Amino acid sequence: MAADTRDALLDLGTCLLLEAGYNATGVQAVLAAAGVPKGSFYYHFDTKEAFALEAVDRYFAVQSRVLTNALGGDGPWLERLERYFELLDRDYETADFRRGCLLGTLGQETAASNDALRARIATAFDHWREAMTDALRSAQRAGEVDDTLDPEEVAGFLLDAWEGAVLQAKVQRSARPLQRFRSIVFDGWLRR
Amino acid sequence: MAADTRDALLDLGTCLLLEAGYNATGVQAVLAAAGVPKGSFYYHFDTKEAFALEAVDRYFAVQSRVLTNALGGDGPWLERLERYFELLDRDYETADFRRGCLLGTLGQETAASNDALRARIATAFDHWREAMTDALRSAQRAGEVDDTLDPEEVAGFLLDAWEGAVLQAKVQRSARPLQRFRSIVFDGWLRR
Repeated sequence: MAADTRDALLDLGTCLLLEAGYNATGVQAVLAAAGVPKGSFYYHFDTKEAFALEAVDRYFAVQSRVLTNALGGDGPWLERLERYFELLDRDYETADFRRGCLLGTLGQETAASNDALRARIATAFDHWREAMTDALRSAQRAGEVDDTLDPEEVAGFLLDAWEGAVLQAKVQRSARPLQRFRSIVFDGWLRR
Repeated sequence: MAADTRDALLDLGTCLLLEAGYNATGVQAVLAAAGVPKGSFYYHFDTKEAFALEAVDRYFAVQSRVLTNALGGDGPWLERLERYFELLDRDYETADFRRGCLLGTLGQETAASNDALRARIATAFDHWREAMTDALRSAQRAGEVDDTLDPEEVAGFLLDAWEGAVLQAKVQRSARPLQRFRSIVFDGWLRR
């Protein structure tokens, strides 16, 4: 039961963090969403910061599984990568574009004010970029992507462009920026 | 004097918004930064939201002037565009990457919770995208950019990629993502 409570706090708290950000998400609201008494929060987490750090780890672990699954599929590497971004889009659309990427959301808000969160988010981005770099290298070996491109640079640029598209989807409440990202990257730029 | 106070509140308040975001920036902190008594704030602004809306307008007006000046310069259009992004980079570096773009910072944090701010930020992004679209159209007419590319789509994608790079520069406290953006876009992708 304690593990269930912990999971519920993290799951529902992550939704609040995604919609309202770090500073506007109070411990009280997380407790109310999970329907548990106050002691439960501080039994599992020392501080709101500790909670947010764990939410970031957990969020990124899920993202990593989605990426690993998408890349482990069949077909050309670029199609696998595109499928991955399509999967992410579907989540954003389901939430009516009120929730973006937790790394981007908390990163924007706390990068200047909270070094622990900033470092954790930077590490998650590093791992994400590395996984994308590997996928692009495979695409190059398969002759799908111009091999004069630096896969690490392209991976970093893609992630940044993606984060910007997610921000814009939130601001416009629209799938357009996400579709534009996929169309420019996968139907144009990277396609030989 | 009233106009000076208003300007000081907006200038210093914008710095606070850039570093701490919307929810963590209290009226009290803005007053303290500007060294003026409490009444001054509510003489000029009805609410913190009204203050932030005006900060967005003012921020975007400055950004627009920087873009207009950079595009009004000499040389190939792509070089003018690149120079514009270099100018922005310099500001971020001066602030040790603790301050990014106000539209991205407030957009991420408030898109789901504050429709007035979201709409104002969306409008600013629209105007920015239109100005970039015009510049890309000029670059196409001058034969600098592949004219099979849709300038509006490319402009939107560039802005998103840029916002993502600024986020990443904040999270990494590094100029690398900004340099990567320029190098991939202007030395590679868009250069014929």
